[in-house]
Amino acid sequence: MDRIRAAADSVASSLVERFHATRSLSEALAKPLSDADATIQSMADASPAKWHLAHTTWFWETFLLRDHRSGYDRFDERWAFLFNSYYEAEGPRFARAARGMLARPSLDEIRGWRGHVDAAMAPLLDRPELAPLIELGIAHEQQHQELLLTDIKHAFAQNPLGQAVYPQTLRPAHPKQSVGHRDGRGWREHSGGIVRIGHAGPDFAFDNEGPAHDVLLQPFALANTLVTNAEWAEFVADGGYRTPALWLSDGWAWVQGEGVEAPLYWRDDRWFTHEGWAMRDPQAPVTHISYYEADAFTHWAGARLPTEFEWEAAAVGCDRAAGNQLDTSGTVEPVGGTALFGDCWQWTRSAYLPYPRFRPAVGAVGEYNGKFMSGQFVLRGASCATPRGSSRASYRNFFYPHQRWQFTGLRLARDI
Amino acid sequence: MDRIRAAADSVASSLVERFHATRSLSEALAKPLSDADATIQSMADASPAKWHLAHTTWFWETFLLRDHRSGYDRFDERWAFLFNSYYEAEGPRFARAARGMLARPSLDEIRGWRGHVDAAMAPLLDRPELAPLIELGIAHEQQHQELLLTDIKHAFAQNPLGQAVYPQTLRPAHPKQSVGHRDGRGWREHSGGIVRIGHAGPDFAFDNEGPAHDVLLQPFALANTLVTNAEWAEFVADGGYRTPALWLSDGWAWVQGEGVEAPLYWRDDRWFTHEGWAMRDPQAPVTHISYYEADAFTHWAGARLPTEFEWEAAAVGCDRAAGNQLDTSGTVEPVGGTALFGDCWQWTRSAYLPYPRFRPAVGAVGEYNGKFMSGQFVLRGASCATPRGSSRASYRNFFYPHQRWQFTGLRLARDI
Amino acid sequence: MDRIRAAADSVASSLVERFHATRSLSEALAKPLSDADATIQSMADASPAKWHLAHTTWFWETFLLRDHRSGYDRFDERWAFLFNSYYEAEGPRFARAARGMLARPSLDEIRGWRGHVDAAMAPLLDRPELAPLIELGIAHEQQHQELLLTDIKHAFAQNPLGQAVYPQTLRPAHPKQSVGHRDGRGWREHSGGIVRIGHAGPDFAFDNEGPAHDVLLQPFALANTLVTNAEWAEFVADGGYRTPALWLSDGWAWVQGEGVEAPLYWRDDRWFTHEGWAMRDPQAPVTHISYYEADAFTHWAGARLPTEFEWEAAAVGCDRAAGNQLDTSGTVEPVGGTALFGDCWQWTRSAYLPYPRFRPAVGAVGEYNGKFMSGQFVLRGASCATPRGSSRASYRNFFYPHQRWQFTGLRLARDI
Amino acid sequence: MDRIRAAADSVASSLVERFHATRSLSEALAKPLSDADATIQSMADASPAKWHLAHTTWFWETFLLRDHRSGYDRFDERWAFLFNSYYEAEGPRFARAARGMLARPSLDEIRGWRGHVDAAMAPLLDRPELAPLIELGIAHEQQHQELLLTDIKHAFAQNPLGQAVYPQTLRPAHPKQSVGHRDGRGWREHSGGIVRIGHAGPDFAFDNEGPAHDVLLQPFALANTLVTNAEWAEFVADGGYRTPALWLSDGWAWVQGEGVEAPLYWRDDRWFTHEGWAMRDPQAPVTHISYYEADAFTHWAGARLPTEFEWEAAAVGCDRAAGNQLDTSGTVEPVGGTALFGDCWQWTRSAYLPYPRFRPAVGAVGEYNGKFMSGQFVLRGASCATPRGSSRASYRNFFYPHQRWQFTGLRLARDI
Repeated sequence: MDRIRAAADSVASSLVERFHATRSLSEALAKPLSDADATIQSMADASPAKWHLAHTTWFWETFLLRDHRSGYDRFDERWAFLFNSYYEAEGPRFARAARGMLARPSLDEIRGWRGHVDAAMAPLLDRPELAPLIELGIAHEQQHQELLLTDIKHAFAQNPLGQAVYPQTLRPAHPKQSVGHRDGRGWREHSGGIVRIGHAGPDFAFDNEGPAHDVLLQPFALANTLVTNAEWAEFVADGGYRTPALWLSDGWAWVQGEGVEAPLYWRDDRWFTHEGWAMRDPQAPVTHISYYEADAFTHWAGARLPTEFEWEAAAVGCDRAAGNQLDTSGTVEPVGGTALFGDCWQWTRSAYLPYPRFRPAVGAVGEYNGKFMSGQFVLRGASCATPRGSSRASYRNFFYPHQRWQFTGLRLARDI
Repeated sequence: MDRIRAAADSVASSLVERFHATRSLSEALAKPLSDADATIQSMADASPAKWHLAHTTWFWETFLLRDHRSGYDRFDERWAFLFNSYYEAEGPRFARAARGMLARPSLDEIRGWRGHVDAAMAPLLDRPELAPLIELGIAHEQQHQELLLTDIKHAFAQNPLGQAVYPQTLRPAHPKQSVGHRDGRGWREHSGGIVRIGHAGPDFAFDNEGPAHDVLLQPFALANTLVTNAEWAEFVADGGYRTPALWLSDGWAWVQGEGVEAPLYWRDDRWFTHEGWAMRDPQAPVTHISYYEADAFTHWAGARLPTEFEWEAAAVGCDRAAGNQLDTSGTVEPVGGTALFGDCWQWTRSAYLPYPRFRPAVGAVGEYNGKFMSGQFVLRGASCATPRGSSRASYRNFFYPHQRWQFTGLRLARDI
Repeated sequence: MDRIRAAADSVASSLVERFHATRSLSEALAKPLSDADATIQSMADASPAKWHLAHTTWFWETFLLRDHRSGYDRFDERWAFLFNSYYEAEGPRFARAARGMLARPSLDEIRGWRGHVDAAMAPLLDRPELAPLIELGIAHEQQHQELLLTDIKHAFAQNPLGQAVYPQTLRPAHPKQSVGHRDGRGWREHSGGIVRIGHAGPDFAFDNEGPAHDVLLQPFALANTLVTNAEWAEFVADGGYRTPALWLSDGWAWVQGEGVEAPLYWRDDRWFTHEGWAMRDPQAPVTHISYYEADAFTHWAGARLPTEFEWEAAAVGCDRAAGNQLDTSGTVEPVGGTALFGDCWQWTRSAYLPYPRFRPAVGAVGEYNGKFMSGQFVLRGASCATPRGSSRASYRNFFYPHQRWQFTGLRLARDI
Repeated sequence: MDRIRAAADSVASSLVERFHATRSLSEALAKPLSDADATIQSMADASPAKWHLAHTTWFWETFLLRDHRSGYDRFDERWAFLFNSYYEAEGPRFARAARGMLARPSLDEIRGWRGHVDAAMAPLLDRPELAPLIELGIAHEQQHQELLLTDIKHAFAQNPLGQAVYPQTLRPAHPKQSVGHRDGRGWREHSGGIVRIGHAGPDFAFDNEGPAHDVLLQPFALANTLVTNAEWAEFVADGGYRTPALWLSDGWAWVQGEGVEAPLYWRDDRWFTHEGWAMRDPQAPVTHISYYEADAFTHWAGARLPTEFEWEAAAVGCDRAAGNQLDTSGTVEPVGGTALFGDCWQWTRSAYLPYPRFRPAVGAVGEYNGKFMSGQFVLRGASCATPRGSSRASYRNFFYPHQRWQFTGLRLARDI
């Protein structure tokens, strides 16, 4: 994890530096994995670690090297088929649910490919007209870093041996902030009115964060802290998972169909972490919950989820680099605190839909966001697995309401 | 269908009259059905016609007679279990997907129950404190009338014999309005700004239509007519169903998984109607399309779907009783025209979510709307199967994006 | 049921008489059914009662009238598609699992068809060269009579109302034989050696019952009576359904996957019968059990199932018309006794496979038996729902090991 | 593969030698595999290579070391849960379909376990009373060697890269026997009569091969050679996969449901082998076919499959160590020839059922065979992946009729 920290700390200044820091971080994250660890796929939603390392490399090889460096030959022609994710414009691709069959190429071969591509990228990194694409590639790889972390956690959790991804106990150096109890929960109020939402300006953002536009809000309040394990344990003990009146209809069907009784990775008073099975910290934020669970909790707690617009309005002036994000905390698990960002992605009650006058980016990279705009909910903030520096107030993460293998949590809101 | 018209015409004045007109209309709609016709269930989404007749009766017997008429004994105690739909607060219920197993009670027994309940309702109909519940019961039964019509159409469509639900050709008396071609499509513009959305006032509305609140809109335009069969045929001919770039990711998976190549009920240049297989009228609105199809069409056409707020803003001043709705047209199929209401429910790009400060109604009837607020999209307007008089500008219909056995269609919107 | 008895009693002498008696019996069995009762299909393995009435008629219309009566026009050309079961040589057909969608043609229309075909058959019934086909048609319709009875029982059992197919209590006239307790179970011994197996001679038999051939048996004993409800209840009480060591591997997977804890139609000390829910008679044979259950029971009881050859060897000299079969008992449920035939089909441990030198019959009717020779087990005897006169020592019934909606039971065997 | 040969050649003389030779062969087979190769599981029917290495070791550790060496401590207590296959008596176990999740323990850790167990076994190998259990353990491990080979072939075949398991071309040293064409197929005739079937005597055999008993056969003939790729290609070209009349009903449903058009691993005129994609040898035996395909082919060819009794009767006097079996051929693929054993397991038309007076072995090892006696068919002979020396005339292999990832083939039979 020292390598992780070192790599992440260097996320800084120039595009060239950030390119290399990002590429290095991916490799640092995969450092403790064996070839077999990096090969398995625990469900169709998740991908092997090796696949993330390869797919991000495919992105650079395809949209930068193939398209913009004349004379570049692909490292291995056959791998484009294997490591395209979902870009229809890039032709057919290997079935997502079969990614776990790719024992070959080996992890070392993928690492070789990464080195090859990194070297080949050198002449492109200072071409100004390519800067936007390179920014996109960095942001893309950062997203896959988070997915690599959550996917490998899910994979390791399937193994009864319960081994750790990162075996060292990494937490002690991190002084835990004291967190308020629910009764004493603090609220930050917002008076509503017309607020500006969405990204504008020269910095990088995904196409789905714009265009910037005005939204009319009613007054509301947002909790100062995320809901904690202790609060969630009360919900469980109070029969929350057995009370249909608290649940959305689809949520209740999900609870019954899957036999859900607690957040993912909970077992008795322990939970599965990147460091193996551990006692749950009652004051740490609850995580690995579905939208259905988050919504049911709010009904039980007499509150509601915020909309993504309320959340963004509340984020004005907040430090997006604060809180527990991937690099300095010494852990890849939630710890708690009062920052708006970090620890867990926060479910909002907003469906993931286009902003007014939204237009997808042109070309294959335009398949990045727009085509997922049905059936999913927006999450805001950033998690303990989000590379610090990649989060921002306008960032829109999105997942289906039943998914919970990401570091998902919730922050209560209420009308005032 | 004369009975249908007669029954529907009487939808009028007093609550008592409207109660009886509504109850009569349900029976008129089921008039041509045999016991077997009314028993079968063609998919889990649909219910047998008999079940609709029974469930609406269960609603009156449960929430009015049981709760408000002392000494009332249920017609048959065992039927409450069979004909509760999804009210968790009302206890366990028969599995939805098995409704087609209920050969008994027979259609005639259900009719007997209906008469019994109608008679027992008499003393309650003029008690002012019950008026809101009675209004709800009427609205509830009207919804099931539309479902009865779409469900029985789906059931009959499974039969290779292709028999008609309503065998008489009923259309001639209806002078078809001339409809503009797409090239000449007219647009009604709206200048945006803050608009008032949602229901307010003494008239009946469902809880999900409120509270009324302000929304900030950007300028937009809405087409004067619904997209027609002729336009849709162009989309098909142009390879619309084979072009992934037009589709949402979930939509493309649906198209490929189901082998979808055209709207539901299309075969060659015919379509299946309540009157059996018939030639498609090119100028009639396209119907029985999923959200995915509607969305793909808008991309192909260089337009977009409206939001539900744009639609409602455009509806100010429109006659909600105009257009082809259930009662006077002489048909239960779309015919075309320039009314904002009627013919087809119109997919919007708005997910079905709670309005600010939404609170579900109290009691079991509070399970009516709020618990469905995930994963579905809002449709606005009314269809040829919507009982005239039950539609209104604030009405929010909602279905999952893959569903298309309702009379669903689309009206294009664009930014201005 | 008086009609059933009357119709069945007339099963006798001439082919013409037997044709008419068989056709009448089918209609008598369906007499108490409403159109809706006769339309529903409770699972893909079962067919609607109406479908059985129609399919048997299709058989006569196709293989007799179409093929052998010149100038015959089908009653309705479209129905051949609907009512072909699985004869590939007869072209495409309606999906088996969708038979429950056929609200039309109505039960009365099917009855009309039956009358039409019966009349048209008249000139063919005394043509000697057609006698084998007519015998086959009769045997075919008798098989569907039994299926009609078991399928409609299954359909009615899905309805929480639990109504009876044949509401009258029909049993009293039948003096129940006293049956021995298990401790006192009698066994009939057989000394083994070379025995003749299979059908030979001029009487009708299905192709799969031949050719007659010699089989070498070891000495064995066969129980005098079928296993009873009382014995089965002991098995249940002794944890039979929770003891994996008793079960075949596939059987244990089935028990766990389906949550099986008792025979089909058992609830507490009652069972579902054609006469509705009734107290189980402890001395009546257990029925509606799968092969897996039968096999597990034998392990628990320290015995085994007989082979089909042992059973047939034991049947030499037994009266195939004795025992509780469809017609005279006044019930369509097992009652118990010491006859080898009747009450329940008896699972054997023989897989359903071709006899040496087996050749399927020529033509479409050759699809009748041979193509099912994989994955199924043979049952011998006859049940309370088998038309008396259609059973015989060489008759080979066959079902998959998990199926249990037929009147299946077991008779223990052991080595001596 | 030199190691394979060396290891296999030593399969000889003493029990001690055979124990070590068998253990070595397992490791030799897995030699070229990476940890990732040995971890993946391509379907629920197959297991990871690592799992086979571990499960066979679990067998020795459990039934020999734990039960018969006092003071032995398991290498790792937790692994018993992971590597029990299906022995209910040994307690709960890890879900079969999730075996591909076991990235840990690593391949090297498993190898360490193997060494540890081998060493611990030393004092047990010459205890006479344990000889039967040790023979069983050897036979068990030999079976898993064949499964390891077929499972890893299946896994590698999923990878579009098509890499070889054993990359060297290993075949040239093997002079291919000339094989007769179908028209010139030779037949060996058997006059039938009473034959002795099943294992008797002091040598090792599985419980399901006995007791020896007499069976009465009719005269028959068995082809001298297995059906070849060339013959199968004719069947394909003649529309064999599109002609329902050739197929069992379950087989036709399988062909249509799975879209089967050729044997597994065929693509154009190539097939996938342990050495990667290669041209198919027309004279080599066809392999990787299901029972359904084998049966359909016999109908097309005007022949039939033999029964397992016919096959065993024909095997009297045949050299069970002849033919292409695992060790000397230099390949793990079929090559052709006239030996009765080797190249492919041969589907018989006999269902896998107990012999008369069969009793399972006592204890947990009694779960080995008897509990699979439903729904499967017997195969006889041995394949190119069967360790030479482990085959014998009475050996009964068994698989479900749709399975074809084993080296399955067919030998025609006919009545005479």
